Amino acid sequence: MNQQAWDFVVVTDRERLRELAGVWRYATHVERSAATIALVVPSSTDRDERDTYQYDIGQVTMSIMLSAADLGIGSGHAAVADQKLARRVLGLPEDRECAWLVALGYPADRPLAPMVRPDRRPFDEVVHRERW
Amino acid sequence: MNQQAWDFVVVTDRERLRELAGVWRYATHVERSAATIALVVPSSTDRDERDTYQYDIGQVTMSIMLSAADLGIGSGHAAVADQKLARRVLGLPEDRECAWLVALGYPADRPLAPMVRPDRRPFDEVVHRERW
Repeated sequence: MNQQAWDFVVVTDRERLRELAGVWRYATHVERSAATIALVVPSSTDRDERDTYQYDIGQVTMSIMLSAADLGIGSGHAAVADQKLARRVLGLPEDRECAWLVALGYPADRPLAPMVRPDRRPFDEVVHRERW
Repeated sequence: MNQQAWDFVVVTDRERLRELAGVWRYATHVERSAATIALVVPSSTDRDERDTYQYDIGQVTMSIMLSAADLGIGSGHAAVADQKLARRVLGLPEDRECAWLVALGYPADRPLAPMVRPDRRPFDEVVHRERW
């Protein structure tokens, strides 16, 4: 199946970004971002539907972030705890919800660069062969 | 937060791939794949936790698929309807579940190439400016 059950609201208006930053306590970076993309999916209480929407929008997120990085643009996602606020600020219909925000901008202090030592669980711990 | 709440079981054994292909009616491509990666996350009935696991594993999936494509390797994901079967075949602990499978292999008939006309919803329908 190829549902493409996603919509994107691109926000650049400063006042709207400020409001949007209120949807989660760790979303303050949204306020000063150059642009923030709101990832919108259908509202659902069905577990399998939600799983699929979230999985698909995760794939979208990686595409957005990689494309941005290729342009020297940094990105940081944020969860949306206050769905009501997000819905009001973005003007979403009742049957949609804002799954995540992806804030974008050029780094203020230095060009974007790969992390030298990303904090990753060790490969041999994470990858299992044939069975767990 | 940087949970990295993911584990990967890489399966190449033919008999195990055959068994694994039984987890979903559209997972038949797993049986003849060169390798299939089982994406494993913690079991949870908490909505926000599930959302996060699925979102994160979606980002991982895009990374896997892009890396594979870069090597000329095709990929196709599959859902896991029969969690009990997946858990048995992969030897997963009770507190984990197999979220998705990503089957990998060189295309049998032609080199991997970008789709000429991907079936995408139109850009102007999907992207909204400032508000929905």
